[in-house]
Amino acid sequence: QHARNHAGSARVDLRGIYPPIATPFTPQEDVDFRKLEENLHKYAEIPFRGLVVQGSNGEYPFLTEEERVEVVKAVRRSLPADKLLMAGSGCESTRATVQLTEKMAAAGADVVLVVTPCFYKGKMSSAALLQHFTKWADCSPVPVVLYSVPANTGLELPLDAVVQLSQHPNILGLKDSGGDITRMGLAVHRTQQQDFQVLAGSAGFLLGATASGAVGGVCALANVLGREVCELERLCAAGRWEEARALQHRLIEPNAAVTRGLGVPALKQAMEWFGLHGGTCRSPLQPLTQAETQQLRAAFSCNGWL
Amino acid sequence: QHARNHAGSARVDLRGIYPPIATPFTPQEDVDFRKLEENLHKYAEIPFRGLVVQGSNGEYPFLTEEERVEVVKAVRRSLPADKLLMAGSGCESTRATVQLTEKMAAAGADVVLVVTPCFYKGKMSSAALLQHFTKWADCSPVPVVLYSVPANTGLELPLDAVVQLSQHPNILGLKDSGGDITRMGLAVHRTQQQDFQVLAGSAGFLLGATASGAVGGVCALANVLGREVCELERLCAAGRWEEARALQHRLIEPNAAVTRGLGVPALKQAMEWFGLHGGTCRSPLQPLTQAETQQLRAAFSCNGWL
Amino acid sequence: QHARNHAGSARVDLRGIYPPIATPFTPQEDVDFRKLEENLHKYAEIPFRGLVVQGSNGEYPFLTEEERVEVVKAVRRSLPADKLLMAGSGCESTRATVQLTEKMAAAGADVVLVVTPCFYKGKMSSAALLQHFTKWADCSPVPVVLYSVPANTGLELPLDAVVQLSQHPNILGLKDSGGDITRMGLAVHRTQQQDFQVLAGSAGFLLGATASGAVGGVCALANVLGREVCELERLCAAGRWEEARALQHRLIEPNAAVTRGLGVPALKQAMEWFGLHGGTCRSPLQPLTQAETQQLRAAFSCNGWL
Amino acid sequence: QHARNHAGSARVDLRGIYPPIATPFTPQEDVDFRKLEENLHKYAEIPFRGLVVQGSNGEYPFLTEEERVEVVKAVRRSLPADKLLMAGSGCESTRATVQLTEKMAAAGADVVLVVTPCFYKGKMSSAALLQHFTKWADCSPVPVVLYSVPANTGLELPLDAVVQLSQHPNILGLKDSGGDITRMGLAVHRTQQQDFQVLAGSAGFLLGATASGAVGGVCALANVLGREVCELERLCAAGRWEEARALQHRLIEPNAAVTRGLGVPALKQAMEWFGLHGGTCRSPLQPLTQAETQQLRAAFSCNGWL
Repeated sequence: QHARNHAGSARVDLRGIYPPIATPFTPQEDVDFRKLEENLHKYAEIPFRGLVVQGSNGEYPFLTEEERVEVVKAVRRSLPADKLLMAGSGCESTRATVQLTEKMAAAGADVVLVVTPCFYKGKMSSAALLQHFTKWADCSPVPVVLYSVPANTGLELPLDAVVQLSQHPNILGLKDSGGDITRMGLAVHRTQQQDFQVLAGSAGFLLGATASGAVGGVCALANVLGREVCELERLCAAGRWEEARALQHRLIEPNAAVTRGLGVPALKQAMEWFGLHGGTCRSPLQPLTQAETQQLRAAFSCNGWL
Repeated sequence: QHARNHAGSARVDLRGIYPPIATPFTPQEDVDFRKLEENLHKYAEIPFRGLVVQGSNGEYPFLTEEERVEVVKAVRRSLPADKLLMAGSGCESTRATVQLTEKMAAAGADVVLVVTPCFYKGKMSSAALLQHFTKWADCSPVPVVLYSVPANTGLELPLDAVVQLSQHPNILGLKDSGGDITRMGLAVHRTQQQDFQVLAGSAGFLLGATASGAVGGVCALANVLGREVCELERLCAAGRWEEARALQHRLIEPNAAVTRGLGVPALKQAMEWFGLHGGTCRSPLQPLTQAETQQLRAAFSCNGWL
Repeated sequence: QHARNHAGSARVDLRGIYPPIATPFTPQEDVDFRKLEENLHKYAEIPFRGLVVQGSNGEYPFLTEEERVEVVKAVRRSLPADKLLMAGSGCESTRATVQLTEKMAAAGADVVLVVTPCFYKGKMSSAALLQHFTKWADCSPVPVVLYSVPANTGLELPLDAVVQLSQHPNILGLKDSGGDITRMGLAVHRTQQQDFQVLAGSAGFLLGATASGAVGGVCALANVLGREVCELERLCAAGRWEEARALQHRLIEPNAAVTRGLGVPALKQAMEWFGLHGGTCRSPLQPLTQAETQQLRAAFSCNGWL
Repeated sequence: QHARNHAGSARVDLRGIYPPIATPFTPQEDVDFRKLEENLHKYAEIPFRGLVVQGSNGEYPFLTEEERVEVVKAVRRSLPADKLLMAGSGCESTRATVQLTEKMAAAGADVVLVVTPCFYKGKMSSAALLQHFTKWADCSPVPVVLYSVPANTGLELPLDAVVQLSQHPNILGLKDSGGDITRMGLAVHRTQQQDFQVLAGSAGFLLGATASGAVGGVCALANVLGREVCELERLCAAGRWEEARALQHRLIEPNAAVTRGLGVPALKQAMEWFGLHGGTCRSPLQPLTQAETQQLRAAFSCNGWL
């Protein structure tokens, strides 16, 4: 009964690592497209499967709709054809999500990623979310991926809804940033008939997620230590768990520092240390204090990365 | 050091009750301006101090920026001059909030109301919020009111930030929807030097808030039982606490049903029962199920309102 | 159908203020009965309605069953006959709660107070709590009061259970420490047929609670500023709300400091400043740091109490 | 500086699986020692590393101190000498914990397990917990294991405290029931100099935990599917991750049903289905409703276990 946008075509293979790229700004807080492009040139040398544009780390809630689309276009121009461009097109209302999805596809997105609406969190029942995501998947010209990120939204996409949505021909998988490995294992288990692909939403639990059946990860830390995160995924895929564990352990603290610990400002600061353009965030996100900068530095240095 | 937008002018008196009006939609989910106007005519007969446009109950996260401004213009055309038009202009970024505030003022808002940004809730420290709200108050052509609504945002505006912001000449007060009466009392106490006005964000604790020093309320239930909520405020202001208590008690359950219990869809359903246009919400907000409708009805009928 | 322990006898009138007394310890962490008695002599001069023994501020989870009973006996010996002795007898299991209640009654308690069991919080449904409290009320030789303190237990006694339990002839009322004034108003409203008495569980919201229909309070701060808390209750009962508000406002910060802010160690420190025996807590509760002591002092001094 | 209770002796090796055994009761809610012994005979045939007595699943908060010790003695009598007896001796106060630990050791415990105190959760700082656990480890005649179970206690033992405590010669490891794989990986990483052993507190994330460096698990589900949980641990230890994953996936739903889903009553019901004595819990824990029993059964049957 669903619109079969992609009947006959091969399923998109999501396996691998994706940095959810940051959005560089000028000192006037405008999008700095030149710096963005320079970052993309650096990323081109790393064996990423693709990029996520307009994830939480891209400060998408601070961008206008026009800016969101322009950034996707800019990435499309620089991205090699064999890399996937996954674009975030989530909005609070279903109609806005559908409209932005169409614009993102037209701008060159291969896949779109949609976060759970969250302002009316008390009313985002499974029924409401099913209707929202089904309508979106029905209308999207490109395949779609679900996105659950409770630390930002205060809301977890219920597993029953995930299982039901996994049957939609245009829904490829789930990016799960909650860090609950049991839930991720169960998501893989309960969707095993559907060729549904689960991506870990953080480098902190990439080994555990992969061991449990995830096919890759969208990892903020990959903006900074891209090669190392790809190496971790490669070791897991090759079943070299001892080496994987040693590498995973050294990534937990840097990852925590640039995500739940100190957030996007820390991610952008760390990018500067590793030769990428990070810079400041849009207000009201504040630059790190000196103490926070030291704390961030320690998370990298005490694990041998700086 | 602050821009003194209103130096010399009398402080706006916020005392009284404000319904945070709902936004009626057509069956195609477009804003229904005719129905909106008819609601406003009904409200004109009730002794409200004014209206809040684009509060949480107005489904503002589902409206485009253009729609948000158009709705304010439409309300301005219908609203008697002696009633305050308080418009919500909160956005996630500081720059968008400043820009929308200017448009809201140009569209006829007397006062603007700004919610805490919340997507990056882990980074919304007092410092970040102070900077955000100060910049906004500095730039706003009209006086401003802070807005804390943790049930939706997952974030409470810290009291220390409230106290510091209360010293800004362009910040009139705080709408507090959290329901923590101790916090509201302390907000009044710690800002007593500043002629800072606290508004209860719900009819459920209006008596307690008023007893603790709040000057009025922005109450979703006032969309439905407007006269009764005004009467409750009047009884409190007159020190007739016994009568106030009896009335307050009968309003708690209907209020809970249209707010945290069943949300905006219930508010709109109840409006229909009381001769106003409510109708459906934009997706993904779902209509009430039959069981929910009965539960809503019971909340009104068992307290003698239906 | 319930055991009518008190058929025919007049309902116990709970109106008024109760300090939930602290338990003084010797330097070896044994109960210091001499210091306890000296505190009771001081309290005898204050117009309390009674005392709560073995509330959260009495460190009851740190006392053995024998100690809990001994402390009640000691208080009974010192307490004037016209003051109520309300003793906490809550345990995790129903059978232990029933047994301790019998011992407390034999030791001289006029009323017993029972907290919600909480270790298996995920399984403490209304049904489980109804069974627990009904069995306890059935068996208790003295009238009983329910006790909900979510900050400690992580669990709120559901209002539906409160309403149903209010019909039990041996259940007098509810001590509610959650601070949700809307819930307290509704508890009063929905039990109005039952002569059910609600007590505020903190001095921070005593005015709001009383305005909403509570008959008094069990207030940690009354251990320190007993006369002032009684005065606040008197002003509320007399309908002198302006004066009440001014006094209430000055009590919020000291109250917060000795409860949710700095806890029992702060309560005991403040008692020392006001001529009572506080002393140290049992481990693992730690003494205040110097910074905490200053913070505590400021909460009293900036409101004119020190 | 610490009491070196075990200087010179080999470190106890915790590797393997432990069922946290349930406590069977008679219809009068007394401990049923005969049924307990029959369960132990069944468990003797399964390659467990040992048993945990008085964990959360043993309903220890419902037992008197005497009962807690008697149950340990009974287990000791039945347990083969090569199996570890790990006994829970956690109490709210430090002094009670120390005393019970001594009794548990005298009753035959090889190792004791202590949960975080939790009633005064707002005051259980790292400093307080460090002092509590250090005092306990100093005094314990047998080696000790830390226990963090936030679902019951509302409190997570902070990782910094874990790292510091790992240096104590009498502290062997940590049982972590929180399910946060990132935290468990970091606990292993940051204590790698200390031969500190981490045990997964649930079968739901055993594979992920083991992949991250945990040495085994204390798993409620092992009371029911003991062989299967041991097999999962064996597959992980042998690096056979594909087979491990397939088995892990089939255990997630049964595990969730007997732990966070339906709790101890469900664990005991499932034990009955698999030939063990479960029976009812002490009040206020309620028997399963019919609907819950069906839900429990489905969790086992849809994964091929019934």
